Amino acid sequence: MLGNFTYCNPTKLYFGPNALDGLAPELAKYGKNVLLVYGGGSIKKNGIYDKVVSVLKACGKEIYEDGGVMPNPSTQKLYEGIRRAREAKADLILAVGGGSVCDYAKAVSVSVNCDEDPWDKYFIRFEDVSCPVVPVGCVLTMVGTGSEMNGGSVITNHEQKLKIGHVFGENVFPKFSVLNPEFTFTLPKYQMISGIFDIMSHILEQYFSGTDDNTSDYVMEGLLRSLIHSANIAVKEPTNYEARSNIMWIATWALNTFIAKGKDTDWEVHMLGQAVAAHTDATHGMTLAAVSMPYYRHILPYGLAKFARYAQNVWNVRAEGKTQEEIAAEGLNAMEAWMRSIGLVMNISELGATKEMLGGIAESTLVMQGGYKVLTKEEILAILKESL
Amino acid sequence: MLGNFTYCNPTKLYFGPNALDGLAPELAKYGKNVLLVYGGGSIKKNGIYDKVVSVLKACGKEIYEDGGVMPNPSTQKLYEGIRRAREAKADLILAVGGGSVCDYAKAVSVSVNCDEDPWDKYFIRFEDVSCPVVPVGCVLTMVGTGSEMNGGSVITNHEQKLKIGHVFGENVFPKFSVLNPEFTFTLPKYQMISGIFDIMSHILEQYFSGTDDNTSDYVMEGLLRSLIHSANIAVKEPTNYEARSNIMWIATWALNTFIAKGKDTDWEVHMLGQAVAAHTDATHGMTLAAVSMPYYRHILPYGLAKFARYAQNVWNVRAEGKTQEEIAAEGLNAMEAWMRSIGLVMNISELGATKEMLGGIAESTLVMQGGYKVLTKEEILAILKESL
Repeated sequence: MLGNFTYCNPTKLYFGPNALDGLAPELAKYGKNVLLVYGGGSIKKNGIYDKVVSVLKACGKEIYEDGGVMPNPSTQKLYEGIRRAREAKADLILAVGGGSVCDYAKAVSVSVNCDEDPWDKYFIRFEDVSCPVVPVGCVLTMVGTGSEMNGGSVITNHEQKLKIGHVFGENVFPKFSVLNPEFTFTLPKYQMISGIFDIMSHILEQYFSGTDDNTSDYVMEGLLRSLIHSANIAVKEPTNYEARSNIMWIATWALNTFIAKGKDTDWEVHMLGQAVAAHTDATHGMTLAAVSMPYYRHILPYGLAKFARYAQNVWNVRAEGKTQEEIAAEGLNAMEAWMRSIGLVMNISELGATKEMLGGIAESTLVMQGGYKVLTKEEILAILKESL
Repeated sequence: MLGNFTYCNPTKLYFGPNALDGLAPELAKYGKNVLLVYGGGSIKKNGIYDKVVSVLKACGKEIYEDGGVMPNPSTQKLYEGIRRAREAKADLILAVGGGSVCDYAKAVSVSVNCDEDPWDKYFIRFEDVSCPVVPVGCVLTMVGTGSEMNGGSVITNHEQKLKIGHVFGENVFPKFSVLNPEFTFTLPKYQMISGIFDIMSHILEQYFSGTDDNTSDYVMEGLLRSLIHSANIAVKEPTNYEARSNIMWIATWALNTFIAKGKDTDWEVHMLGQAVAAHTDATHGMTLAAVSMPYYRHILPYGLAKFARYAQNVWNVRAEGKTQEEIAAEGLNAMEAWMRSIGLVMNISELGATKEMLGGIAESTLVMQGGYKVLTKEEILAILKESL
């Protein structure tokens, strides 16, 4: 049932091997002070930093640097970014990196002109933006979060053991994003498959919810089939452009709000995974992978018809002579086998979680209302134990 | 292979039973003179005209009317619309109707400030817009063309027997579109199924081209499956909101440029159908339906693998023990049986075409370069004979 909603996604995308050619015309739209935001420095090794800086210089920009954004951007780093952006009087924040760098850039963009503590305002109280937003552009070097075409921003408060995302409105979406699949070729396999599972999880969080017949479900089945197919190629041939470009495009459409429109969505896997990360600082996609199978097996009885549909339409399970329960279980078994085959981490103990941490992780897990079963704290603990 | 492309779609959509609530906040962004564009007057019978006018008046707008837009908007009507828009000093053109009305509104919007003949400039010479564009908004009452979220505009020159489309850039896209599925409930069945086949044709024109493994192909299979499913419901229950809302949403995404990105596309069925319409003034979707089966059976040998994939992934044809040719043919047979089952017109003679017209129709048919087989004039004539 497609009920009432609005849709608007103004981000301009430049895609393909020549995508960086789009940077100069975009830079012309903004003032001269650019805060260049990036992560641990891999972009200096693979040459992307030099390419971006040379475009910035050719466009006459003043470059202010803000490197060292970590995989789970922290509140402490956010406060530092705000200071740097203010010192630079930034006219544009240019994020060069993966989803964490883009998320961080957006968090800075809504905080530069904000008088309050942005953690409290946006991530604890989930308030709207009430100050001018500094425009953000992205040059993507890692695929998964979809942050390049949405208003999402996830920040981690290590003291409070909370990793929380805010979904901001269209005025916070990146004004433009440069998507060159070749920029992702040198990414280590661990990061690549982590991103691939992040994409899959985004789609499944939106798929496993609602009982209506919704066009988005059909689109998501297509995205999942393409993702599985291209992932199988990419793990063997990381420089296969066709596979990597498909994965990049799927990532963008998995979380740019299109497939969520008019639909219920769940997001409990992300709440579980983010709680694990808040306690272990583990890689995002791996935390999702490690909790997914126990979670989906737990909620299967409450969304049986959808899990049976998933098995048939995504994993090609044949239905003849089987009960719905058998079909649905076969689908999840196929998913688990595939996850193991591409090398995902399948339990949270490998990510640093211990039995002693489980109570705290359960405490940090937000309970979502949109899935087939609203979890109790006991159920969360049971799922985490299964994930150990 | 997702090569180089840019993507940007700034149209804001208001969807659902309350979609018209989006009109007032949008109107606030524009000056007081609104050119209200509509078709043959059905909106006056079903109450949509009154609803829209009451919002315009409540927002203090001066309303200038331009009704009588015909299903295949003509150059003559376009010249009239330009005069009316100039007299009104229109700050906004508000199209209330189906794709023809939206297409027409866009054609007027790029012509008001244009010194040349817009037919020659845009539809014969395919030139870019070089003058200020009057903003367009849409309230959709018929589903199919996707005109509500793209830059497409098709105009017919009856003297020259040419029906030609121009795909304008983002600055010509509607600024906003109001999509209320309930506004389509009272449409006659002939118009509804014509729109449904227009949607299917848009998807197939983009699907049957290219040999790469492209995510868009998977998404299109999902859109087609959902369309077929919802169409089967809608022909029996025209007021089934779930089915009509899915069809409306599919129509928008079938032609808002998303699924075309990075892909070859064909559009020869539209060239054939538009040539038929230029000679018969028949309903757009029906002209596409009437030429599709002969066209697809003709090009099948040149795109065999894709037709076999289509048969399996869209029409559930089982592959075991069959040749690719058999699988592919079975898929097209299933498509034809479905088209007949929902009541589409399957030959152009029912649309008013005669044997004597075929030479002229062939002459009016543009030859596209993106499909599995670039047609010769002889092949076009042979396909039209098969369609008779």
